Amino acid sequence: MKLYDYFRSSAAYRVRIALNLKGVTAERAFVHLRQGVQHGEQYRDCNPHGLVPALALDDGQVITQSMAIIEYLDETHPQPPLLPADAKARARVRGIALAIVADIHPIDNLRVLRYLKSALHVDDAARDAWYAHWIALGCAALEKQLSRESQTGRFCHGERPTLADCCLVPQLANARRAAVDLAPYPTLSRIDAACCALPAFADAAPARQPDAE
Amino acid sequence: MKLYDYFRSSAAYRVRIALNLKGVTAERAFVHLRQGVQHGEQYRDCNPHGLVPALALDDGQVITQSMAIIEYLDETHPQPPLLPADAKARARVRGIALAIVADIHPIDNLRVLRYLKSALHVDDAARDAWYAHWIALGCAALEKQLSRESQTGRFCHGERPTLADCCLVPQLANARRAAVDLAPYPTLSRIDAACCALPAFADAAPARQPDAE
Repeated sequence: MKLYDYFRSSAAYRVRIALNLKGVTAERAFVHLRQGVQHGEQYRDCNPHGLVPALALDDGQVITQSMAIIEYLDETHPQPPLLPADAKARARVRGIALAIVADIHPIDNLRVLRYLKSALHVDDAARDAWYAHWIALGCAALEKQLSRESQTGRFCHGERPTLADCCLVPQLANARRAAVDLAPYPTLSRIDAACCALPAFADAAPARQPDAE
Repeated sequence: MKLYDYFRSSAAYRVRIALNLKGVTAERAFVHLRQGVQHGEQYRDCNPHGLVPALALDDGQVITQSMAIIEYLDETHPQPPLLPADAKARARVRGIALAIVADIHPIDNLRVLRYLKSALHVDDAARDAWYAHWIALGCAALEKQLSRESQTGRFCHGERPTLADCCLVPQLANARRAAVDLAPYPTLSRIDAACCALPAFADAAPARQPDAE
């Protein structure tokens, strides 16, 4: 299988972590988002949504959406599991992941930031404030949730990494790159540090990818 | 269990459809988003993210995020299944659902539209254009995907409704409410019509909810 990837895509970063945790190797193709390769006919033919990541299977099926890819990897390579066995616990992990995947990240995506500038003529300062606003709002809610729930452990859920951690670490990396103050989120920061101490997370970092600039 | 709901929330609408398809009844609590009830201390204590839907279980656990709730319902009430049995097919259904849940809907959420107006002083016409832009972009990609893939049937995946349909119908309802032209999306429109002919979908529509205005 082949992963369509871009070093700075935090959605692709989630999948890189999951692949590393599973010990699964995928062929890599790099889609240069800043150069607009995702809009080209060739990539649109592979993934009509024009986003990364996408995972092309050997039979030609292309799985889109980071979370769908990670769930697929978890179903086809069950060890180590990235979701707990219990339905309630699985729901908690998916809820945390989706708070990032569906609430924070999409609003701060590259294409949204570009639309703010090109169509709405928003200046750089207001665009940066926009970016920081949605991260802060989402992180504050996650911090409140994780700090008060007993299921939170060394990681977002218990004592081993799950889908939720695969999503948290790239989002905090984005936050740091945008100079967002993470001091108000001690639980998130503690979990992030625990994750980044593991090679599966560290090796998936943007700076360590072959297409890093 | 109790569903925190709002008639016009398309994320809550997804869950209402899933509950109906499963034949599961939940107690309902209505969170008036336009009046800001989701920001109040009482609701934040239940769901720190301040969004609907949320599903409170009888043991006190609160499941957040529509897709996490639907996956939970599917795991705890397996019939009729809302995801196929095969891992590749499951990935396809989740990918379609997430194209809506993570790519289209969050950018057009109420809180984002409000920020455009209050913080960026975007006028109503530009805000409406923003709303229509992200729906059109996402629908065009979904139309391309669904029209060319052989797994598409009467519904998004095959001959019975799945998680993907639970997400598609509310998104198209939003599009219609914003007067977005759906003519360029004949496959999406055909699937939407097939869904809305089913009582499970029709009964979940915003206008049929007790809190509808």
